Amino acid sequence: MAHAIAPELIARFAALVGDRYAITDTHEIEPYQRERRDLYRGRAPLVLRPGSVAEVSAILALASETGTAVVPQGGNTGLVGGQIAHDGEIVLSLSRLNAIRSVDPDNDTMTVEAGVVLDDIHKAADSADRLFPLSLGSEGSCQIGGNLSTNAGGTAVLAYGNTRDLVLGLEVVLADGRVWNGLRSLRKDNTGYDLKDLFVGAEGTLGIVTAAVLKLFPKPREMATAFAAVASPAAALALFATARAKAGTQLTACEILPRVGLDFVLRHAEGSRDPMAEPHPWYVLLELSSPLKGADVDAMMQAILEDAFEAGTVRDAAVAASVAQAEAFWQIRLMLSEVQRKEGGSIKNDVSVPVGMVPEMLERGITTVSAMIPGVRPVPFGHIGDGNLHFNFSQPEDMARDDFMAQWGAVTDAIDDIVLALNGSISAEHGIGFMKRNLMEHIKDPVELEMMRAIKATLDPKGILNPGKVV
Amino acid sequence: MAHAIAPELIARFAALVGDRYAITDTHEIEPYQRERRDLYRGRAPLVLRPGSVAEVSAILALASETGTAVVPQGGNTGLVGGQIAHDGEIVLSLSRLNAIRSVDPDNDTMTVEAGVVLDDIHKAADSADRLFPLSLGSEGSCQIGGNLSTNAGGTAVLAYGNTRDLVLGLEVVLADGRVWNGLRSLRKDNTGYDLKDLFVGAEGTLGIVTAAVLKLFPKPREMATAFAAVASPAAALALFATARAKAGTQLTACEILPRVGLDFVLRHAEGSRDPMAEPHPWYVLLELSSPLKGADVDAMMQAILEDAFEAGTVRDAAVAASVAQAEAFWQIRLMLSEVQRKEGGSIKNDVSVPVGMVPEMLERGITTVSAMIPGVRPVPFGHIGDGNLHFNFSQPEDMARDDFMAQWGAVTDAIDDIVLALNGSISAEHGIGFMKRNLMEHIKDPVELEMMRAIKATLDPKGILNPGKVV
Repeated sequence: MAHAIAPELIARFAALVGDRYAITDTHEIEPYQRERRDLYRGRAPLVLRPGSVAEVSAILALASETGTAVVPQGGNTGLVGGQIAHDGEIVLSLSRLNAIRSVDPDNDTMTVEAGVVLDDIHKAADSADRLFPLSLGSEGSCQIGGNLSTNAGGTAVLAYGNTRDLVLGLEVVLADGRVWNGLRSLRKDNTGYDLKDLFVGAEGTLGIVTAAVLKLFPKPREMATAFAAVASPAAALALFATARAKAGTQLTACEILPRVGLDFVLRHAEGSRDPMAEPHPWYVLLELSSPLKGADVDAMMQAILEDAFEAGTVRDAAVAASVAQAEAFWQIRLMLSEVQRKEGGSIKNDVSVPVGMVPEMLERGITTVSAMIPGVRPVPFGHIGDGNLHFNFSQPEDMARDDFMAQWGAVTDAIDDIVLALNGSISAEHGIGFMKRNLMEHIKDPVELEMMRAIKATLDPKGILNPGKVV
Repeated sequence: MAHAIAPELIARFAALVGDRYAITDTHEIEPYQRERRDLYRGRAPLVLRPGSVAEVSAILALASETGTAVVPQGGNTGLVGGQIAHDGEIVLSLSRLNAIRSVDPDNDTMTVEAGVVLDDIHKAADSADRLFPLSLGSEGSCQIGGNLSTNAGGTAVLAYGNTRDLVLGLEVVLADGRVWNGLRSLRKDNTGYDLKDLFVGAEGTLGIVTAAVLKLFPKPREMATAFAAVASPAAALALFATARAKAGTQLTACEILPRVGLDFVLRHAEGSRDPMAEPHPWYVLLELSSPLKGADVDAMMQAILEDAFEAGTVRDAAVAASVAQAEAFWQIRLMLSEVQRKEGGSIKNDVSVPVGMVPEMLERGITTVSAMIPGVRPVPFGHIGDGNLHFNFSQPEDMARDDFMAQWGAVTDAIDDIVLALNGSISAEHGIGFMKRNLMEHIKDPVELEMMRAIKATLDPKGILNPGKVV
């Protein structure tokens, strides 16, 4: 059961947003309590759905006055339990703050509220003949406030950066209800401390992001997509290096997947087919883009692949001859999470290392976990160009799912140790949230942790913002 | 005279670095007291030149214990007095921490100490067949620690970002001497708060940066440079929009200058010549780059200019036919600061606005200041693609220099008001330092200023780090 909040206090909070937007009914609260992997179940006595920044401000002022803990929630697609009320906190849903306040094509910026769904931002950018590049599996339901608060990554980081790199300004409601208007839309501004980047990636523990100024980019007019077979992660890395050297930021994606991943897709995804005649141990998906109509990105792709063939890096390659074929290559990559679910239990790691260390991380991780669980099926895939892999393991075919999943902690610990030994990160994209909070003492040097705690105490002295998360 | 620091305390500090690196002699101290524009003169009783991070740590531990104020200094090229001891503080010079600790071409990173001169970083990157893109007028003497602490901009921001965007990790000595090792070299790491970006641009008021992990990029193999004549800032902006839409991040520079700037160069810079047969009111320097050997950037430039001619945006254009010609075009742009000095007094503003607002800012600024000082010669130039101009004014030809320079405050106030009305920044590149600290109350909303002060108090509770700067 949720911590009791006195009915009269619930009534005070409800009065701030109107009864219609103050949810206490067990059934209606349910969607805010469950997250997509079903790893956690929330216990919130109250969900508030404010319709304005002023209402968010009033809620936090009252929360601060009464010492009431608040968990901000966007599209509820987070993977580390950061958006869940674990201990009876109030859930503050930002989904009604969903206006696109303005689009400025001259400045290549857009000002949006926290509750706008990522796909709606894509559409608005497209209408202005621009690109907003952030791209994630959950883009149909995740909200930009959550993307900002978790510094979301995705498949376009290589050329465009993480969410942090895509934002110029923020509006934030602070723990005591004060509103910081930092909605600047400047490319250069050296007037004091960079507060914006404190809130980006803080997972709602330092303030609640209510709006942001996002960067827009020219739309790609020409694209080339290739699916290449390589012998090993080291060969995949060599192919990445060649592509990066030749294409620079026109290399807009470089993703690796193992044969078993393709096997899973072929087995479970209707209409999928192997782009190659023969099986190969590893594959790399390469994408090049140019905003210039008529730019010969195919020639650039050819130059990359020719070099790679000559160097013996690539064993086979298919270049998409049509948009449909490019989409089919991408589908293989994008189906990987889903098809793993159909192969039984899956233990997931979201890790990064310096790019050159990826092969060593893979070799050590696969060897270690294979020794722990004979027959385990490693399915590491993802953003090799960023040094970031989803280093997942599917259960052995002949093992009970529960027995395998009971190894979650042991496997993630083993992978984390390898990653840390290579100066990597145990959470490259997904954040710390609730899931990894207990690891912070282990992974951070004490000075860094002390600074984080000091900043938390400074900006949220009563500890009401998403308590029990991150620090 | 400098504040008195007791001789025995000076001796304690000197013992930490050795007498040879503890400077108290008036004559030897002089170079650390003067800055390049001669606007300020320092008053430091002691300059310390530590040779290791441990020595920096020991100095700050002692400074913290004794409440002694410390001003960090790099290449002493700052333009807002941030690196000067205004009130008898100790100057802590980072110049002996000048090792390039490592270069990692696989990861496209380099780890350098704070005292490395920017040009030496360029050379080391070049030796590894990579580019470090930060490029400034003072690159032959400025140090990366200063670049980081001021979040330096320069001419490559359009494609590569400010210094903030070029750093992955930092090593910082905190006010009490603790050393934070945040030297990560990861493209993705979502484990807690982004502390790095607090120190970048904090001008040494929150901690002293001693080392950094920098991003490297593929070297450009093909470049195209054009010098285009346009009728107005609005036309320059339209040309930028066309170039950006077609070239994306391959547009590596877009700089504007007025006719009077070219006149100054032709008058004072030996060997310079007008790229056009006829005079025009404004000029735009465009540069395209590609890392792909053989990439047809000339065709891309032609496509941009043809579109611009058709739209009536461009009146004339010269595309460099050789490297020498490209350098000659760049020389016109790079000589602008120097030649202004030869035309008498110059009042300088380093401002930015949303890119689409540049024409309005220029029109209002030129009209306002021309009414204040009849005959004044506006020389606004710079990074139109970033919305950042050096909005300078040269004195009327028939005015006494001192009379003109006495108007500095009135002119910068007038420009600042226009910039703020357009939601711009009064310090786009150069920082706040000592020069603009008194403006902070005027330009920042109270909530932002309160947050900055709270963070300053948290990280530097005794106020010993570069006091009197920024906040």
